[in-house]
Amino acid sequence: MLNIEGRTIKVLIANRGEIAIRIIRAAKLLGFKTVAVYSSADKNSLHVAMADEAIQIGPANAVDSYLKQNAILVAAEITNSDAIHPGYGFLSENAEFAEKVEATGRIFIGPSSTTIGNMGDKAMARKLMSAAGVPIVSGSENFFNDVETGLEQAQKIGYPIMLKSVAGGGGKGMRLIQDQENFKELFELAQNEIMSSVGDNRMYIEKFVVNPRHIEVQVLGDGAGNAIVLGERDCTIQSHHQKVVEEAPSNILDNKTRQEMLSVSLTATKMMKYRSAGTFEFLYQGPSNYYFMEMNTRIQVEHAISEEVSGIDLVTAQLQLASGTKLDQIIIGAKHKYAIEARVSAKSAGEIKGLHIPGGLGIRIETALYQGYTISPHYDAMILKIIASGTCREEALKRLQIAIEETVILGVETNLDLLMRIINHPDYISNENKTNIDWLDNMLKK
Amino acid sequence: MLNIEGRTIKVLIANRGEIAIRIIRAAKLLGFKTVAVYSSADKNSLHVAMADEAIQIGPANAVDSYLKQNAILVAAEITNSDAIHPGYGFLSENAEFAEKVEATGRIFIGPSSTTIGNMGDKAMARKLMSAAGVPIVSGSENFFNDVETGLEQAQKIGYPIMLKSVAGGGGKGMRLIQDQENFKELFELAQNEIMSSVGDNRMYIEKFVVNPRHIEVQVLGDGAGNAIVLGERDCTIQSHHQKVVEEAPSNILDNKTRQEMLSVSLTATKMMKYRSAGTFEFLYQGPSNYYFMEMNTRIQVEHAISEEVSGIDLVTAQLQLASGTKLDQIIIGAKHKYAIEARVSAKSAGEIKGLHIPGGLGIRIETALYQGYTISPHYDAMILKIIASGTCREEALKRLQIAIEETVILGVETNLDLLMRIINHPDYISNENKTNIDWLDNMLKK
Repeated sequence: MLNIEGRTIKVLIANRGEIAIRIIRAAKLLGFKTVAVYSSADKNSLHVAMADEAIQIGPANAVDSYLKQNAILVAAEITNSDAIHPGYGFLSENAEFAEKVEATGRIFIGPSSTTIGNMGDKAMARKLMSAAGVPIVSGSENFFNDVETGLEQAQKIGYPIMLKSVAGGGGKGMRLIQDQENFKELFELAQNEIMSSVGDNRMYIEKFVVNPRHIEVQVLGDGAGNAIVLGERDCTIQSHHQKVVEEAPSNILDNKTRQEMLSVSLTATKMMKYRSAGTFEFLYQGPSNYYFMEMNTRIQVEHAISEEVSGIDLVTAQLQLASGTKLDQIIIGAKHKYAIEARVSAKSAGEIKGLHIPGGLGIRIETALYQGYTISPHYDAMILKIIASGTCREEALKRLQIAIEETVILGVETNLDLLMRIINHPDYISNENKTNIDWLDNMLKK
Repeated sequence: MLNIEGRTIKVLIANRGEIAIRIIRAAKLLGFKTVAVYSSADKNSLHVAMADEAIQIGPANAVDSYLKQNAILVAAEITNSDAIHPGYGFLSENAEFAEKVEATGRIFIGPSSTTIGNMGDKAMARKLMSAAGVPIVSGSENFFNDVETGLEQAQKIGYPIMLKSVAGGGGKGMRLIQDQENFKELFELAQNEIMSSVGDNRMYIEKFVVNPRHIEVQVLGDGAGNAIVLGERDCTIQSHHQKVVEEAPSNILDNKTRQEMLSVSLTATKMMKYRSAGTFEFLYQGPSNYYFMEMNTRIQVEHAISEEVSGIDLVTAQLQLASGTKLDQIIIGAKHKYAIEARVSAKSAGEIKGLHIPGGLGIRIETALYQGYTISPHYDAMILKIIASGTCREEALKRLQIAIEETVILGVETNLDLLMRIINHPDYISNENKTNIDWLDNMLKK
């Protein structure tokens, strides 16, 4: 169990939904205490039920709760949390928030606020990536705010071009311009849009990449210049710029291009002394023809596929790195596998009135149960198998324990309590041959 | 898609519960058609809902349904099934049933009826294992039916001894005898018990192994003398001889003993020309001190932990071997990993009225959903991630498809249909770069 100055680490999860659950499970794996925050709309949410403590931070509206920096900082203060994990979305890429967390002496689980700020500034990001040898799409060298310079630059780069604003985001201040004819009109629309929104009218131009794939590279760094790359993900299947289906590795990349992309990403991660998990997003047009798009300085929705392929538990690694574990130690066990199965049995027949099945990394469920199913007295009482995997016995065991705790089966009696007694028994936990085939029966007689 | 003479293979699953689901998923992975059989008590079971066809074979009582050989043979006949997978329990180790299946020209998914018969006969199994160099516990060399010979043999072997009957099983005709004093009385009790039950009064004696661990070795053979060993499982935690918690590998075995146990098991598997999945069960007392107990000529409840550790999908391998795939091909991809994520989104807010979450090998679920949870309109619509893994893209994709098909979310509209359309689209399936980041939006416009 990791701790700071002899005290168990307490981590506040500044998020909701599946990613909050993901982070809570990782924290439990390491023995950290967890604090959930929630809006009034999320009172009955699973992340609230699963955390050790939960604190309401505002109304349903995200701006007044999950996005409200001060509410979260106060929650961290009240609960005496050591660290804040921002998840994805919400405040996860807000440099100002990360800076405020740092200022209170707490750990922001992610990169430094400086890194977040640099990568959030498109111009700075382009500059840094270019210096690290990461291919960037050809574009204007400087920013400008007059249409004439824009026209000149577009001419040089060649149409179609993508007009972007330095301060933009989420498509704001961005226009695809197919030819010179429409340039002036679209430029003014884009500039007015961003000016009225953030008060910064600096624009720049990038060559428009036609029909690209979206390929991204997952990295993990320790903030001291050590880093690893966990392969790429292909996230080409998108709707309205939202990823829908992602895969790892990419079935389209040739090996040479893959190696190039992984290599430049690793170099850039090391150069930045990047800390925690991060993703380099690229537009890919063909072999050795790819361009840096942006860096996501946080865990991503699709991180799980990289975990499955690499054997590295990325969210746990974020927590470990934040609490002083060395990157070497995180890598070392990645390819080892240990698995433990617990057989859940019914001790009575009857209808399943409520059913909640655990999940997450390293948890496989085999069952024929469903809510409303009636367990017959005629057959084997074993109704559910929970198979937990990890890189070592301790990890598999901890995952199994978390999964058993999460399991809810209402309507029939089960052996879930007994399973917890077994896997928490010192004889069972021991590696010193303290059990035998009569051990459980003897324990039950006591 | 595997087939026999151009026809899709149809497999009948002569079982119920989680193992029937496990087999149906493996069959779907390979593109086989599936036939479920069920008793009247299992009409509303998940395995009935998940199979392509389902046929009722009798009343709730297993003797008149799942154990009724003729009912299952007729069901196979009626449905024109090519193969029968017996699962575990029920008819899975019944040599007579396997022989009947063979006689109808169908494939029995398991070893040959001869192998099942040999391993079911304790005397024969001891003889065969001994010949293959597998350590067996010291015991009487011949069988006997008189108490005097028994006493003599027990003296020679040394107390405590385990008296067993040749035809016994499930503890019948078996007695632990601590010393000479009680021998005669216990011998007669055991002999009468087995005589009245099966009409065979031949007895034998084995040295009683004190406080052993239960360690077993998973093997896979092709029936032609080729075989692999998938490591050991430690199944020491038992109650009333029923395993409760199992793990792989064993945390107690030293490497030398492990290698010995794996090696003798492999040799015996090859010598027997063993076909399909099988398990050598051992009693373990300490380093290099272990004894063959019995061989299970079927898939076991705890097979999943070996799958997690080895990367080999054992049930799929059984089906593949039965339909002519070479063992080499099964092994080759075991350590490769490919993962695909599908993001399930809600298209409306509201209460989750019904929820069924998929599972099984290679399926990881990340969600904060539970039945009765109300999806709020205030936040991201992504409510569930299904992460499917396999040894190649095709396998991961097929698992994802099966998992999406199994998923039920009632009360809100979701994008499950869209996800199925995407992953079944020829452009998406293709490895020839036929999609790009606008592909899905363009498809949706059509």
